[in-house]
Amino acid sequence: MTLPIASVPDGTVTSARGFSAGGVFAGIKTPGTDKLDIGLLVSDQPCTVAGTFSQNSVISPTVTLTRERIGADKQVRAVVANSGCANTAVGGQGLIDAREMTDLAAARLGVAAEETLVASTGVIGVEIPMALMREYIPNIEVTENGGNEYARAILTTDKRTKEIAVSFDVDGVTHTVGGVSKGSGMIHPNMATMLAFTTTDANVEPVFLQETLSAAVKLTFNQIDVDGDQSTNDTVLLLANGAAGGQVLSGGNEASESFAEAVLQVCRHLAIEIARDGEGATKLIEVTVEGAHSDDDALVASRECASSLLVKTAVYGRDPNWGRIFMAVGKSQIPLDESKIDIYVNDIQIVADGRAIAYNVQSVVMALGDDEVRLRVALNVGNGYGQAWGCDLTEEYVVFNSAYTT
Amino acid sequence: MTLPIASVPDGTVTSARGFSAGGVFAGIKTPGTDKLDIGLLVSDQPCTVAGTFSQNSVISPTVTLTRERIGADKQVRAVVANSGCANTAVGGQGLIDAREMTDLAAARLGVAAEETLVASTGVIGVEIPMALMREYIPNIEVTENGGNEYARAILTTDKRTKEIAVSFDVDGVTHTVGGVSKGSGMIHPNMATMLAFTTTDANVEPVFLQETLSAAVKLTFNQIDVDGDQSTNDTVLLLANGAAGGQVLSGGNEASESFAEAVLQVCRHLAIEIARDGEGATKLIEVTVEGAHSDDDALVASRECASSLLVKTAVYGRDPNWGRIFMAVGKSQIPLDESKIDIYVNDIQIVADGRAIAYNVQSVVMALGDDEVRLRVALNVGNGYGQAWGCDLTEEYVVFNSAYTT
Repeated sequence: MTLPIASVPDGTVTSARGFSAGGVFAGIKTPGTDKLDIGLLVSDQPCTVAGTFSQNSVISPTVTLTRERIGADKQVRAVVANSGCANTAVGGQGLIDAREMTDLAAARLGVAAEETLVASTGVIGVEIPMALMREYIPNIEVTENGGNEYARAILTTDKRTKEIAVSFDVDGVTHTVGGVSKGSGMIHPNMATMLAFTTTDANVEPVFLQETLSAAVKLTFNQIDVDGDQSTNDTVLLLANGAAGGQVLSGGNEASESFAEAVLQVCRHLAIEIARDGEGATKLIEVTVEGAHSDDDALVASRECASSLLVKTAVYGRDPNWGRIFMAVGKSQIPLDESKIDIYVNDIQIVADGRAIAYNVQSVVMALGDDEVRLRVALNVGNGYGQAWGCDLTEEYVVFNSAYTT
Repeated sequence: MTLPIASVPDGTVTSARGFSAGGVFAGIKTPGTDKLDIGLLVSDQPCTVAGTFSQNSVISPTVTLTRERIGADKQVRAVVANSGCANTAVGGQGLIDAREMTDLAAARLGVAAEETLVASTGVIGVEIPMALMREYIPNIEVTENGGNEYARAILTTDKRTKEIAVSFDVDGVTHTVGGVSKGSGMIHPNMATMLAFTTTDANVEPVFLQETLSAAVKLTFNQIDVDGDQSTNDTVLLLANGAAGGQVLSGGNEASESFAEAVLQVCRHLAIEIARDGEGATKLIEVTVEGAHSDDDALVASRECASSLLVKTAVYGRDPNWGRIFMAVGKSQIPLDESKIDIYVNDIQIVADGRAIAYNVQSVVMALGDDEVRLRVALNVGNGYGQAWGCDLTEEYVVFNSAYTT
């Protein structure tokens, strides 16, 4: 059981008490309306911290440094993030530059460099333009209303910011969980997505904090796909500063469960918004697999379906080619009984007992034209449940990605 | 050591002695120039047979029937194949129809139904139009020159046939290995590709025959990718009828090794042609990973790279965005040392020791414009070697697949 969880209007990464943020345009990205490319996020008191990171064999030194600085015995105060340059595949200079970025941010904010984390996203193989960092980081203003600036500062090919906050009350104390993320391309996370920063003013025991984040990431960021590719910079952070003044949350009670549910809601929103805003995407695809032998089976199968190019292109073309859904679920190699499979598109059943049934094709074509297409596959062999989110694959994705650096 | 292996001019699946084939247009596919949609392949004497099949959890009943009819203790005489309809996700009717197809083919050819295999490819979720089968199969003419007809009869969205034969002499006896394949979409095989049929007049012991085919498939069909999706109908068959009159090949001698090498050459050609002719493709991408800790590592990493949408779109756009190659190799999660990686595009080195080096961008852009683009990644941590083949991802793939059934 959880306590009632409410949405915070205009919620963002600074909605939780004690967090401030800001951003600046330094010219790392090409200029544009409202564009920012360096962001600072700071807590006015020390935070426990949890993180999940890319599983790619090639890792940005930025990720390496941040991973070193989090853990159950560590506290952090701030995060500096930039977009436009991933600081990846740049040799030994990458770690030197990542450290200097945290030095600059720490000096600006009056905190220790060891308490400052760093994240980068953008083109691989190009060094961070440190001259810009040295010029602009010292001038970034952080405020309690700066969450949106921070959200803009981490975008690359995203068309819009991803922000949310939710809150719940424990014994009269309001606890808030907020977050921002960015995505768009190279999105098929494994243990984390491109970049997401979540904050809370709850007072959270660090081991429980990491468990809570890992559990939420498994069901959210790890279940989205834009193009099957996995970034070298994937990072999800959760900072808890205790500024709400509430009890210590360490699991095993209603307040802890409510916190975990709030984190899950924040992560789910941020993950789905990444899928919805995938490069070239015109619509969100939500895939639900139910009645599998296990939840893990359902998670794997739903993600295979959300990742399939043939499913993505069929949805784009409003083509009720359900054989591709069959193929994609089967590709996951989970145990199933083909003769028991039912398939629904936006609640219209099109397959029963593994075979096409008579349905109104035009109504399904209409459903596939919605901004959100829900594909539901009932395997009817157990109680396992899982969801995944993707987007359609369009010519725009190809055009965009065939001329990105040149 | 192997004996000299020669290419057979205009080689095809009937180049090996004792094999005949033919095809007919029955109207399962939409009509078009040179289109055929049912093919028969027959040996004038019993064959030992080996096969590899789709690992998808959803399997066509056609595959199920063929899998039942091959094995070390079985002999076969014929194969009937159709394109335009996959006979998948059609309930219990699928197995009934697959059996009847083999009954019709066996009657036409004067062989036993139990010695007749079947393969189908095309749209999923639609029943085989058996009326057409009953009308057209009894009239198919098979000849020793019918290999090309058979190759045409199995095509779906392919733009051209894939055919080859090679031969080698053992003590004055010429042994031939021939084959045909089809591919185009839903191509990311696991233990087999869409459809490939290979034949030989060598006299091959059945266990060695299966070992030979499985080894060749691992290095060829399992290393190609068009779109990451795995068909429910993937089948590779190798039929050996002994018509050359040579010694029994069972491994462990030069003749057996020459046979294995000939099978590998046939499979490599047929696999590469599938990648080259991928849906919407304008060019072949060959990825070589060398200096890995093991051959298996190199195979996995090369395939991840050949499968990456971001690599495919970069090659399409002639964009030397080598960070994507880095990302894709790292996504395979094999052990590597980033600071030792060298990358070459058509032999032009662009990365040394994990970092960009000064190269003539225009010459690399030119190289990326070739019909065949060779990406070579030297990991420099061991002696492992592997290759994979893919094609570029173009707007045409999206346009084509967003309106396939409707």
